[in-house]
Amino acid sequence: MESFIRSFFFFLLAFFLLFILQFPPSVIGSYPGKPAPSDAAATARWLASQNSWGVLSTISIDLEGAPFGNVASFSDGLPGEGLGIPYFYLTTLDPTARDAQKDERSSFTISEFPIGSCGMRDPENPACAKLTLTGKLKLVDVHSAEWEFAKLALFSKHPEMESWPEDHKFQIFKLDIENIFLVDWFGGAKHISPAQYLDYSMNQDSLMSQA
Amino acid sequence: MESFIRSFFFFLLAFFLLFILQFPPSVIGSYPGKPAPSDAAATARWLASQNSWGVLSTISIDLEGAPFGNVASFSDGLPGEGLGIPYFYLTTLDPTARDAQKDERSSFTISEFPIGSCGMRDPENPACAKLTLTGKLKLVDVHSAEWEFAKLALFSKHPEMESWPEDHKFQIFKLDIENIFLVDWFGGAKHISPAQYLDYSMNQDSLMSQA
Repeated sequence: MESFIRSFFFFLLAFFLLFILQFPPSVIGSYPGKPAPSDAAATARWLASQNSWGVLSTISIDLEGAPFGNVASFSDGLPGEGLGIPYFYLTTLDPTARDAQKDERSSFTISEFPIGSCGMRDPENPACAKLTLTGKLKLVDVHSAEWEFAKLALFSKHPEMESWPEDHKFQIFKLDIENIFLVDWFGGAKHISPAQYLDYSMNQDSLMSQA
Repeated sequence: MESFIRSFFFFLLAFFLLFILQFPPSVIGSYPGKPAPSDAAATARWLASQNSWGVLSTISIDLEGAPFGNVASFSDGLPGEGLGIPYFYLTTLDPTARDAQKDERSSFTISEFPIGSCGMRDPENPACAKLTLTGKLKLVDVHSAEWEFAKLALFSKHPEMESWPEDHKFQIFKLDIENIFLVDWFGGAKHISPAQYLDYSMNQDSLMSQA
């Protein structure tokens, strides 16, 4: 009996330690890898690489020109190797892809909140970052190298996409970014140019620390 | 020494039991309170009452008519007593409120994903519900009973709003719902009428079970 209690004691101790280890780091302190809010391009690229879904808004055909936001999964690259351009896997059975075929103007909105790094902050608190990329939603040519890259990017972050029904004719779309709106701290939105955003190297911090 | 170990044992046991109790029920089985996907109005109202944020899309002034989605916190009532109408706390320092003053057409998109009830499903999987409410984004009259209701609804779900800076002149807005787009299962979107959505009583299941 005593040895059973001892075993149970060690089970509980191991459980407690494992629990502490898996705790969200945001509860303990700053979130690992999250750039300083003053570095807007880095924060925007971090948000795009960390999150896996957002809301894609188009000009609605069905609703006669009203804006229409739809939940969409996306990927900007292999995990940790994102290039900043959001790729989507959409079907024209859904209004978003149909809308984009008529009017390419779209915006894609990502919140920091579901990443888990906002701590106790409200989703609308300016220090809980919000990124809106606006531009043109375009079909990616199935015979291009970009299509191969985008397919890998999507299927690695969203494994179930590979088994989505073929007769739904999913196609890969990308957002050609023309405008970037980022709120990541108090004091109003930051407008980064697409070049500042796309040219930012996610590895420059680690490269600098190696120098 | 032995009594210390005994105390530590009971600490670990209590910790373990408390941990099990707080575990997301979705991991164990179906999510408590989540309506069957076949009941579209109930599912839409459940999503609106459970979630606390979404993406509010407007026709952008700054971007010459392109759609612009912005992360927004909302509330449709006191916790568990929502009426389905999303209320927002917005400032015209932000483009969304300015856009709505020029063109009221807006859509508000809520995902089931951050609630935690989608299990292993991808955010774009049709069985992970997505709700888009489209209509007109209107200012709520500060001298109305609706304003008092909305203020309570917002501040109870988003306590930090009460301390947001006064000089930002936050105002309460609501979405006057004209169209409802819900995906909550395979087989395409469900279009519920605003009346079906708003007239649905969140307590009818519990009333029925009392009968």
